[in-house]
This record gives sequence, C-alpha cells and structure tokens, in this order.
Amino acid sequence: MPVTVKTPDGASVEVDAGATAQQALQALGRIRGQVLAAKVDGAVRDLSTPLTDGATVEAVPADTDEGRQVLRHSVAHVLAQAVTDLWPAAKFAIGPPVTDGFYYDFDVAEPFTPDDLERIEARMREIVREGQPFARRELARDEALELFADQPYKAEIISGLDESEGAGTGAVSVYDNVRPDASVWPDLCRGPHVPTTKWIPAFKLERVAGAYWRGDERRPMLQRIYGTAWESRKALAAHLERQEQARQRDHRKLGRELDLLSFPDELGAGLAVWHPNGAAVRMQMEDYARAEHLRRGYRPVYTPHLGKSTLWEISGHLDFYAEAMYPPMEMDVHHGHAGVDYYPKPMNCPFHLLVYRSRTRSYRELPLRLFELGTVYRYERSGVLHGLLRSRGFTQDDSHLFCTPEQVVGEIRDCIAFTLDLYRDFGFADGPSRVALSTRPDKAATVGTHEGWAHAEASLREALDASGLDWIVDEGEGAFYGPKIDMHVTDAIGRAWQLTTIQVDFNMPERFGLTYAGADGSEHRPIMIHRALFGSLDRFFGILLEHYAGAFPTWLAPVQVVVVPVADRHAGYGGEVVSALRVAGLRAELDDSDDSMGAKIRRHQLAKVPYQLIVGDTEARARTVAVRPRAGDQRKDVPLDEVVAGLSEEVAARRAGT
Amino acid sequence: MPVTVKTPDGASVEVDAGATAQQALQALGRIRGQVLAAKVDGAVRDLSTPLTDGATVEAVPADTDEGRQVLRHSVAHVLAQAVTDLWPAAKFAIGPPVTDGFYYDFDVAEPFTPDDLERIEARMREIVREGQPFARRELARDEALELFADQPYKAEIISGLDESEGAGTGAVSVYDNVRPDASVWPDLCRGPHVPTTKWIPAFKLERVAGAYWRGDERRPMLQRIYGTAWESRKALAAHLERQEQARQRDHRKLGRELDLLSFPDELGAGLAVWHPNGAAVRMQMEDYARAEHLRRGYRPVYTPHLGKSTLWEISGHLDFYAEAMYPPMEMDVHHGHAGVDYYPKPMNCPFHLLVYRSRTRSYRELPLRLFELGTVYRYERSGVLHGLLRSRGFTQDDSHLFCTPEQVVGEIRDCIAFTLDLYRDFGFADGPSRVALSTRPDKAATVGTHEGWAHAEASLREALDASGLDWIVDEGEGAFYGPKIDMHVTDAIGRAWQLTTIQVDFNMPERFGLTYAGADGSEHRPIMIHRALFGSLDRFFGILLEHYAGAFPTWLAPVQVVVVPVADRHAGYGGEVVSALRVAGLRAELDDSDDSMGAKIRRHQLAKVPYQLIVGDTEARARTVAVRPRAGDQRKDVPLDEVVAGLSEEVAARRAGT
Repeated sequence: MPVTVKTPDGASVEVDAGATAQQALQALGRIRGQVLAAKVDGAVRDLSTPLTDGATVEAVPADTDEGRQVLRHSVAHVLAQAVTDLWPAAKFAIGPPVTDGFYYDFDVAEPFTPDDLERIEARMREIVREGQPFARRELARDEALELFADQPYKAEIISGLDESEGAGTGAVSVYDNVRPDASVWPDLCRGPHVPTTKWIPAFKLERVAGAYWRGDERRPMLQRIYGTAWESRKALAAHLERQEQARQRDHRKLGRELDLLSFPDELGAGLAVWHPNGAAVRMQMEDYARAEHLRRGYRPVYTPHLGKSTLWEISGHLDFYAEAMYPPMEMDVHHGHAGVDYYPKPMNCPFHLLVYRSRTRSYRELPLRLFELGTVYRYERSGVLHGLLRSRGFTQDDSHLFCTPEQVVGEIRDCIAFTLDLYRDFGFADGPSRVALSTRPDKAATVGTHEGWAHAEASLREALDASGLDWIVDEGEGAFYGPKIDMHVTDAIGRAWQLTTIQVDFNMPERFGLTYAGADGSEHRPIMIHRALFGSLDRFFGILLEHYAGAFPTWLAPVQVVVVPVADRHAGYGGEVVSALRVAGLRAELDDSDDSMGAKIRRHQLAKVPYQLIVGDTEARARTVAVRPRAGDQRKDVPLDEVVAGLSEEVAARRAGT
Repeated sequence: MPVTVKTPDGASVEVDAGATAQQALQALGRIRGQVLAAKVDGAVRDLSTPLTDGATVEAVPADTDEGRQVLRHSVAHVLAQAVTDLWPAAKFAIGPPVTDGFYYDFDVAEPFTPDDLERIEARMREIVREGQPFARRELARDEALELFADQPYKAEIISGLDESEGAGTGAVSVYDNVRPDASVWPDLCRGPHVPTTKWIPAFKLERVAGAYWRGDERRPMLQRIYGTAWESRKALAAHLERQEQARQRDHRKLGRELDLLSFPDELGAGLAVWHPNGAAVRMQMEDYARAEHLRRGYRPVYTPHLGKSTLWEISGHLDFYAEAMYPPMEMDVHHGHAGVDYYPKPMNCPFHLLVYRSRTRSYRELPLRLFELGTVYRYERSGVLHGLLRSRGFTQDDSHLFCTPEQVVGEIRDCIAFTLDLYRDFGFADGPSRVALSTRPDKAATVGTHEGWAHAEASLREALDASGLDWIVDEGEGAFYGPKIDMHVTDAIGRAWQLTTIQVDFNMPERFGLTYAGADGSEHRPIMIHRALFGSLDRFFGILLEHYAGAFPTWLAPVQVVVVPVADRHAGYGGEVVSALRVAGLRAELDDSDDSMGAKIRRHQLAKVPYQLIVGDTEARARTVAVRPRAGDQRKDVPLDEVVAGLSEEVAARRAGT
C-alpha cells in the first residue's frame, strides 16, 4: 500500500510502503548535489530510514552544517576501525563530530606518534575505497553488552544508558561497517551515517592529545586523535588554508613576536602580563570605551576585585556559579573561630547593585547607567585555556542599566546603536554577522512574571526591528533570569566570534531588593540590563590581533610612526620630526640605532609599524619626509606639516590607514 | 666638690656635686618658659636627675614634642590613679603617650560610660590640684613583683623584663605619686615625668575603646581610655578645634554626604565601592596620571591582581611580607593532589619584573620606565582600618624604573620634578613639607654591595640637592634592600601626610635575575627604582577630600556646573547652556526639578558644586547667565561664550577657582 510523504515547503509524493528516505527524496526530485542524510520529521536520519505515512522529509546535503556532522561522525568510525585494525588491543571510547572536524578517544599502551597517524590515515583510505556499508541494527542491552564484552568503555556507556533511551524499548543501536570479506566492525552509535564509506570525499587526521575518560582526572588518560572531513577536496583545502592563516595570526604567536604580552609560568595558567606595546593598544581601547560611555550618559563606578561570601550569597553566585569562581580566601581567622571567605569577583554586577542601593532612588534618576572597566576572575580548567580567548582573568566593558519598564526599549536601542558604532570603529564595518534574541526557556523554572517577560521580549524585539539589523530568535535560549540579545562578528578569515551581550535581568534587583520611588510616590522595582559590548576587552584584543594579523590600524598601533634617519647626521632633523609628531599626540619613535637603513626598515616592517618616515639630506633641507607606509607605495618629498596633519586626521577618524 | 656640666651649644657651669638637672639649667640660665624635663647626655630625664661631672644638659620645654611626651605620660599616671581611686578593683595595664595624646588600658567589670569619663576627669583635676610629686625609685625585681602583687598586668610586665633592663642591675623603676595624706600611688614606669602633678597645664579625656591585652585576641579585652594633654589651655583649645575641623572634614562623612563612595557591609571590611561622583573625581586623577606618565616617557603595562605562590617565593614576599598578604586560594586541586596557592597581589613589582625579563634587554632600551595604575590588596587587621586612609585594597600609581648606574641621578631628578608638579596641580603648591633620605641601616643585614649603596645614596643626595628642596637624612632608616626618599605634604588644617616614595632596590633584580647587555657586550644587572607619587590613589583621594573639605577645585569636581532655570519656561535655554558647556568638555547638569529656586541653590551649594548658572528671562533673551560661584559674589549678565571660555581655561589650568 502506498504512503504519502511531504516536504516542509509543501510538496508531496506517494511512495511504496517501506520506501526509504532516499527513495522518497528521489521521487520528490530533491537529490541535488551530494545528499548524505535525510531530515525526517525534523530529525537527521540515515538515507535508508523507512518512512511512514504522512512523514515530512528533507535532504541533508553534504555542504551544510548538518551534512558535515554526519560526514565527520562517519569518518570517526572509519578512524576507529583503522586504529583497531592496526592495534588490535586498542580500546575505543567515544568519537563525536566537533566544530570543523571530529575526534576519537583510544586507550592504547603508547601514545600515537606522527608516523602512527600516517599509517592510520593510509588504512582509513583503504576502508574508504572498500565502500563499507554503515548498517544500523538495534540490540537489547544485554546483547549489546555481550557484543562489546572486550570494550570496557563501550560497556560502561551501555550500562549507563537510561532505560528510557532507545524510545523506551531498552534497545541500543549499533552501526556495523561491513568489510569486503563480509566480516563486521561494529560501533555503538545513535547515528545517522552516510550509506557507505565511499561517500566520504575528503578527510585528514590532524593531531593527537591526551584526554581523561569522561574529562575526569581520576579516570584513565586516553589518546584523542583529531581529524577533519569535508564535502570535497576543495573544501578541505580551503579549511587547511584557513587553519594555516589562523596559525599565522594566532594571537599568542603574534603577542610574542610583536612584544605585546606574555603568559609567564610564574604567574599561573591563564594569566597574562601586558607589555608596553600591548598596553599601548589596550589603553586606546580603554580610552575609547571611557570616552564613549561618558558621552552617552553612562556614569563611572569603581569596585574592588573581591568581596566576602555574604555578597555572593545574596547575588546567588555561590549557589549557581560557584564552579566558575576562584576558591575562597579565609580572612580574619581568629583563634578558635572560623574566618570569613572572600572570593575574587567573577562578575561586576553585585558591586553595581550595591552602588545602586547605597541610597534611596527616585524615578527622576532613571535610567541610571553605571559603567566600569571591571576586571573579573573566573576559574577555567587548565585544559580549556586558550591565550586571551579563554583565560582566567579579563576586563569587561561592563555596564548595568537600571530603568523603568517604559525606558527599556530606548535603552536597548541605544545599546545596539552603541554596539554598531563600536564595531565600525574597530574595523568590523559590516556590523554583526549574527544577531540573536534568546527568549524565555519553556521548561526551566524562570524568575519574573509572565507580564515582565512578555514586556521585556517585546521591548527587545522592538529595538531590534528599529535597528535595521537582520536578527533571529533563539527560542527558549534565554537565561532563567531574563531574555537577551547577543551578537557575533566575522573576522578577516571568516571566523565568527561572539562579542556583545545585552541581557535583561529580573533576578538581581529582586535579590538585592532594589527599589525606586515612582512618580506615583510608591516603591517600584527597577528593570536591570547587563551589557558588555566588547564582552571581554582582553578577548576582543586577541580577536582584533588575529583579525588584523597584528597590523593594527594607525589609531590603535602601539607605535604609529618610526622616523629613520638615512645617516647619523640626519638624526637631529629626525628628532625634530618625532617632536612634531608627538606634539600632535602621535606615538612616534626615532630609530637612531647603528643598524643599516635596510635592516631598520625591515625591522619596523616586521613590527607592523604603520608608517616609517625616512629623512636624509634632501628632506632635512626642505623640511619634508619620505613616507613609507606599511602597505602601499612610498611617497617622496611630503612636507612635514602635511604628514602630521594627515596622520592626525587618520587617527582621529580611526581609519584603517595603510 | 663641684662638678662641671655643659650644654650642647658649648656653654658650661660649675655646680655642686649632686646638683640636679633643674639646678644646673637654672645656673646656666636655660629655664625659659615652662621646662618639664631635661635632656642629659642626649636622653630625656626627670628634672630631679643628679648630674655627674662632664654631663651635657639641655632643657626640654613643654611646647616641644619631647616635652609633650613627658607631660602626656604623666597625665596617663594621673588617669590611672583616678580610675583606681574610683574603681578599687580595677587592674591597670599600660599607659603610653601617643600622637597628640595618651591612653591607659584597664581591666574593669563594665565598660566605662561617658558619665564615668566625667567622674574620672573630675578626680584627675583634684589630683592635679593636689600637686602630687612624681618620685622615682628603683626596686629589685622581686620587690617590684611584691608591690604589684594584686596587679597581674604589671606583674606580667615585670616577669617579662629582660635581666639586661635597668642597666643590667635587674632593678626596675617605679614612680610614686605621693598624695596629700602621704599615702603613695605607685606605677611601674621608666619615666621621665614632670616634677609634680601641678605642672600639668591642660588635659582632656576623649573616648573609650576596647583593646586586647598586648593586641592579642586570645588575651582579655581591656578598656582603653584615650586623652590629650597640652602645654597650655590655649594649645589644648587649638587642638580640640583642629579635631573638630578634622571631624567635619572626615572623608568617610563627606564621602557619604557628597555621595562619593561607600563601604558596604556585604563587601567586607576595608573595601569601598566608588559611586559615580567619587568615580568622576578618580577618573580625573587617573587621566592625569596616565597622561603625565606617557608625556614623561613612561610605558604602560597591565598585570593581573593575583599570581601563584611561585612568583611570591621568587620575589621573597612569602618570606618577608606574608603577614600583609591576603590568605591563599588553593587552585587546581585534583583528587589526591594538593593544588597551587594563588595570592592577591600586595605589590605590583614582581609583575613588572616579569615584563622586564620577558625578553633579553640591551642598554639601548634603558632607562625602561614601566607604569601601571595597579590595584593591590593588603591584609590589615580590622581594628586599624580607617576608610580610604587605611584600607584592604587600593590603587597605586606605581612605576618601576630599570636603568644603568649612570642613569640613577637623572631618573631620581625627574621623579622629584614630577612629584613637585603633581603636588602643585593637586593643590599643594607649597610643595612637600618634609623630604627625607633614608640611608643604609647599620646593623641589619642588607643586600647589595658597599659600592652599590654608596653610589645610590650619592645619586639620591645629588638629585635632592639639585631639586632645591630642603631635605633631611633619616640615618639608617633605609630598607634592607636599598635607600629611599620619602615626602610628606601638609594639608589645609596642618596635618602632615606621607605620600611619595622613591626607593632604590638592589634585591629584586637579583632575585629575578634581571640583566641587560651593556655597551661592552657583557651582561649587567640593572638598577631598579620603585616609585609611587600619589602613593595610594585611594588614600590620596581621601586626603584631598579632607584637604578641600569636599570643595574640590573645578577641574576635579564631580559636577562642575549646574544650570538652574528660574522657571519652567527657561529650561529650554538652560538645556542649551548645558550643551554648550558639555561640548567644551565640562561636566554640567541641568536642574529642571520641581523644587524652588532657593531649594535648588541650597542643594547644589551643599553638594559643593563649583558654579551654578542661573538663567531667567533676561539671560535667555541676551544669551547670558548669572554666575553664582561656590564662594564669592554672584556676577550677572555674563555672556555664555565668556563663561564657557572662562571655565574651560580654569579647568585646563587646574586652578583652584572659587
């Protein structure tokens, strides 16, 4: 008996009962390019999945995020088969897809060497050539335990599976790779997978790292092999090229090479010291943030970097956020009496709430916009630390706005406008690449009233609409304490970074008992908005550094101009040029070292100094300079006044310059 | 047989053997005004001390620091006698002179009440009227123990005295107050004292506080009575007036009244949050510091607020400074393994040393002047905390200069010049009231070579001489790691505050193994200079706040101008005036509240706003304002442009203004 299946865009077709998703998609004419899997009633499934009457079906092409996940997960199986072929004693654990690739964890006697990876890759290519099918079957739990009797990690996973998994049947699914000799290599897996290993167009193993089983340092250390896989050789090549670019731009590498900052061992993991070059850039960022906040009616506050447990109890951080906090310091221990625990602050908000409630407030004072460049300290496991992008201490451009319900829309609009100005000024002129509104979670227990949430979400929507930005809704992704907007930018090599968050909070004003006297004379609870535009200043600096590959625009560059005298006798005029530049507020240096001209120019070029000004006899006589920009052509005989004015204007306009 | 005694200035006289210091001073004609004691061979003694042949003798007048100490110590005895007269069961402990006064500690069943203080003071006046002699005698230790058999604190002191005390005789000295009825009130005391209680011109009891015996919270809590005593009723009245002024100016009181900052309980003792008004002033101070450091060739760095124990072991802080550090946080505790201790930084120097040694250095880079507004955290017992003046966290304008030996003089000269500019700009135009050079300690084990110390001290002397300042030597008061200069200023009510320290350090460069490649191609150890000009920015803010009694000069004031419309219809023009002021960079607000003109003006006057600009019909028509300065007369019909230009100029010049 035929069944009817349809597509989300309204097409439908009749197919035989028992027809697979692949057959249905063919019948629907929806197989264009390489399709690796199918979305059946919204869930990604094997192409071989049989359809029931009324099912909705969609193609999952190879060149989509979902398609690549299926592909990468399938390659992970191939990797595990290759490893167990080569090391029959190896125990294999888990092998999920991750951003841009996949990994698989193995328990082996010796760590894998680079040579091992080559051998594994060669064996994987054979498996791909063999076109082994991925065949799904379901087993009862005890059958599965028997199948993986000599694979303790698989057995542990099976034993840990909830009875409700496998649609409550107690069954677990296994994918068998069927070899040419009809022998079977099974892996415990929910799927889905590509139909056969032939469908794998391009992959590469990348590196090995140690990883504790289940991330628990008490459990065995496994060997994690990372790889990547793509829908085509071309896409793989493009990915490897991006990776190489990213490696060249790595902010930790550039941080060393350009003498911007370092992470000294003596200091502890995830903590940086900023050298003068890095600090000069950061100071520009901070000056920008301070000036712009003041100009927009924010009011500065300063608060300490630590506070006692009472504060974190009131704020709820000790209940809900303790894992991300540094451990306590026990202060004022008196003999026979326990002391009081103090904690470095993971967030600035509780301190700003204390400022708000330091006296009574009236509606006339609202909106009250408190602003701080607040340095916070958060505990991250050492394994996940990554330079400035993920560290244990960073400075936020952190503001908390306290306002009446009527003021929310206006405040959010201003925040969005401020954000767009900031993106433009720091070189992301295209604005955010992703803007999302996260709404009230359905299931979680949330604080705040239904009306409160509805009003806040409506306000955020209205402000987003008014901004002219494209935005999407992350349904139910709000925090338990309020809805939020977040924004990503895409950098010069196409990577997306989350920066800005604008978050309504119904919780903190309640916890701290904030009020204001309304125009009606009675007490009201203010609405609180958390917002950080850079997010973390340190992380944003790291992103900028990679975005610009170290070649900061002139207004941000640590040294903006180096003056290079052709010979010793030109150092006097060179000094005058430096003075003229400094008087105009430019960061200028004279290079009067003994090196050759060529060596000097090369050095400053490597240091990515935006402009070198060369001065010799002609220039000294005519009070001109030869301008050698970091990129672009040299210009000769430019009058000194003109250079000073031009550079000042470039800095004031925050133009990218060279 | 006569003996010859002399004065330090070369006079001499023959007196009978056994003549007292008082008799000798009379013979020498050196009793002018009230003389309370004598300095015999450099040590302050009772006037009744018999002189030996060849002794040097000087008068100790009542109106000198030494004279007041003798006086105050004597009044402390009178206090103790009065208390034991009134509370015969009271045990008395110690009663030393302190700055501007004295105290005495008592063990009594109930804390003293204000009424008790009045009764005690009345009894003290009787004792003074009675003119009880202070008679010194020496006792063997066991006799003394018997004398104070029912005074356990005295007994404990006697038992604790080293055998070498009392010139090795094992004797202890006691002063007897002899009452009119010839009964005796003895106190264990080294002296010296005034001859009789009649010699006490003016005193007052001030307050009571709890204090642990020997500062040890495991020992009994005693009742400490504080008092003051002076050489005349007039001097006492002047002191009380200064105290009242200081109370009015107390930065904690003004901090509340002017909404500058607060010390919320939830945060912990000694930690402040800066409200927008205080933060606005602080931001000016920070901007000033940043701009001036950059202008003078300092290079910014940023460093974290905590670091792991390795750093503090290398720096020596854990060996020598642990008591002033916060307790550790144990990070990265893995099961079965101890973690690593992290500490908030009590100083910035170790971090700056890490920046220095982040790469190799050449003599060409020196002097390297690293600068940070670095917030440090130091543990102070809660009992000694005093607002911003003594807190548990503060921000230093902290620099570390690394230079060659030849550069030391020049660097110190620049530091002194920088300091004088800063004092002038912040309202201490008279410059420092005390400048002292602390030289190498004689006895302590010091680091650094003899030549190093000699060179550094000579450099500091040369720089001080070149500065044109009056300066003194605090012989042997240098730290074990190097000599230093420190400077005090005197505030508007005559109190001296130590601010600036400029300190050579031979120790840290050694501990961190700092080097630079010299012009000779070999490795040298740089000289390191620590210096903080404000010292603590927070403390300096507190001092400024008290110095100005909250009336900050215009360039520092949180709000510089408030525009007050006469009626609602003038708010439009008022807004234009505010805009014009803000465009010129001035911190201006419009007061368009419903209050009456009089109420508004009073409020802004109380808030110590430097200027109020009143605008009504006449002003709106003529585009003028009526200028009402915080102090001085109102000026009418001043053109708006003129006001904006005048205020801008006043701010730029950092003039005190009104």
